[in-house]
Amino acid sequence: MPYVNIKITREGGTTAEQKAELIDGVTTLLARVLGKNPTTTVVVIDEVDLDNWGIGGLPVEAFRQQQRGGGK
Amino acid sequence: MPYVNIKITREGGTTAEQKAELIDGVTTLLARVLGKNPTTTVVVIDEVDLDNWGIGGLPVEAFRQQQRGGGK
Amino acid sequence: MPYVNIKITREGGTTAEQKAELIDGVTTLLARVLGKNPTTTVVVIDEVDLDNWGIGGLPVEAFRQQQRGGGK
Amino acid sequence: MPYVNIKITREGGTTAEQKAELIDGVTTLLARVLGKNPTTTVVVIDEVDLDNWGIGGLPVEAFRQQQRGGGK
Amino acid sequence: MPYVNIKITREGGTTAEQKAELIDGVTTLLARVLGKNPTTTVVVIDEVDLDNWGIGGLPVEAFRQQQRGGGK
Amino acid sequence: MPYVNIKITREGGTTAEQKAELIDGVTTLLARVLGKNPTTTVVVIDEVDLDNWGIGGLPVEAFRQQQRGGGK
Repeated sequence: MPYVNIKITREGGTTAEQKAELIDGVTTLLARVLGKNPTTTVVVIDEVDLDNWGIGGLPVEAFRQQQRGGGK
Repeated sequence: MPYVNIKITREGGTTAEQKAELIDGVTTLLARVLGKNPTTTVVVIDEVDLDNWGIGGLPVEAFRQQQRGGGK
Repeated sequence: MPYVNIKITREGGTTAEQKAELIDGVTTLLARVLGKNPTTTVVVIDEVDLDNWGIGGLPVEAFRQQQRGGGK
Repeated sequence: MPYVNIKITREGGTTAEQKAELIDGVTTLLARVLGKNPTTTVVVIDEVDLDNWGIGGLPVEAFRQQQRGGGK
Repeated sequence: MPYVNIKITREGGTTAEQKAELIDGVTTLLARVLGKNPTTTVVVIDEVDLDNWGIGGLPVEAFRQQQRGGGK
Repeated sequence: MPYVNIKITREGGTTAEQKAELIDGVTTLLARVLGKNPTTTVVVIDEVDLDNWGIGGLPVEAFRQQQRGGGK
């Protein structure tokens, strides 16, 4: 009965299909590695506005500019 | 001085009155069971889009269809 | 299928019975107010060391001393 | 590599500049006090609707009315 | 730069190797499905005492007894 | 009435004084930047075992070895 919270930045193109793939993937991972019961595994995805996410002391967009094209 | 976070799926009809009832109910519960001071009890309710909530390896709507009309 | 996280300070005497009462109480509250299904309601209680909990800009024990005997 | 989550009530005027100042401030604090590496310090700010935030057993606006002009 | 929090019940035998497998698995999943940069993906695993985890209105051990040998 | 959760790796030497400095620092920051009331600002610090913290797809100690002496 694990609980998983995935926080990602809200980018334009995250689709319902991709979210379903995350839910399935992490539930399967917990079943495979720890034998956790998929039926009671809960996954919650939070999409966070770019202004509200900081790394390296900067909002994420400023951080990316500083990194010149770094990853998502 | 407890902190309580309640995450629920965002369904159409959750009203401000219902949220107030949750806030009051959980604060009262902590005061009754553990003697916690209501004045410094904080409650935060997160409403999560259905696409972003998974259970049983599926997004919640697909899970409900699979369960044939299971609960909220 | 709500998820509830209750954070409380770790005081000497929180018993398994009190925790069970919190779990039952909050699950019942969500069923009564919002019709949420108890079967898939998950509750996680975190007990936090006093040094690790701050309020009013102070660790909780210093805050309580300042308040001269305020509540838990 | 700390992770910091700041939850505040969603009031009209929180600007991107203020959020950047929070991100910078908390990252600097962790570097100064604990020597944590700013490069891998992550900060996530959640803005919570007033209806969804409770204190003292009341939604925050009712609590503020009760306190007659208390702080944010 | 996702942040993932995995909460599981603290059972006797969760090894460092299994935790490493969870960290690797969820990081790889986010890179594959959403193109997220593994370098800045943070994963935090919380192991929660059985008394502190509730489902179906019961502490997890009482719930399992009720379910007669249900999953972890 | 903000709520702040600070998660750090559990290293040997985090003292109560350092935690008090974090609590004071973040509470002061929120008062200065957003005018938040210190009296109702709650800070919770979680110290996470090294095995339970991942970055870059690795547990933090393996990540640090890979980075050859990178920061905390």
